[in-house]
Amino acid sequence: MIGRLNHVAIVVPDLPAATATYRDTLGARVSEPVDLPAHGVTTVFVELPNTKIELLHPLGEGSPIARFLEKNASGGIHHVCYEVDDILAARDRLKAQGARVLGDGEPKTGAHGKPVLFLHPKDFCGTLVELEQA
Amino acid sequence: MIGRLNHVAIVVPDLPAATATYRDTLGARVSEPVDLPAHGVTTVFVELPNTKIELLHPLGEGSPIARFLEKNASGGIHHVCYEVDDILAARDRLKAQGARVLGDGEPKTGAHGKPVLFLHPKDFCGTLVELEQA
Repeated sequence: MIGRLNHVAIVVPDLPAATATYRDTLGARVSEPVDLPAHGVTTVFVELPNTKIELLHPLGEGSPIARFLEKNASGGIHHVCYEVDDILAARDRLKAQGARVLGDGEPKTGAHGKPVLFLHPKDFCGTLVELEQA
Repeated sequence: MIGRLNHVAIVVPDLPAATATYRDTLGARVSEPVDLPAHGVTTVFVELPNTKIELLHPLGEGSPIARFLEKNASGGIHHVCYEVDDILAARDRLKAQGARVLGDGEPKTGAHGKPVLFLHPKDFCGTLVELEQA
């Protein structure tokens, strides 16, 4: 069912510093920061040859990643995102197997303008999993 | 400098259960478990079209991931591994920029039989980074 690893998301306390780390220290290609107010994050995309790293920083009040940063002051890996062909079929298959889909179970529009869902970390090896319709 | 994302490593408390989650629930292709006594882990490789997920479980006494599992009973993402063309050149560039290389700074032979190094999480956005010579 799952296809490509679309991205690994890393929450960072200082987005310019993290961008410099990936660009200058690790020598990767990075994007300009992109504000995503609907998601409560500012993102910098690190382009690797086979996938992306997304550096995330809270944007505005009530950002969904604010609490993660409180608990992980240096930042840390927040989630992995796997691609699926059909997000509703994927959701229904997962639910039929007892896996918990976060929120109301309806796909939202993700950072790339595509339908996404998040799965409960306790059902996936302690890992927050995002599914994105490819 | 960094190239492909070689893998994401996820430490899991129950390797057969985690394998079943990735194989049956998420529908991915998974390997048989592979014991790596020199690394103190048993690994299952999850093959995605563009990269790998490595499920890790402690093997033997003094496994380097035992403490992680004590702190993260449900498991969690342990590290990301980026490929580099020349690991000694990469190390020297990183050290020249003040980044900390773990251990004695000499590459070890990693899970894929290639030279690897680990970088200090505090210097890389709270993320343990492995470099593997491609």
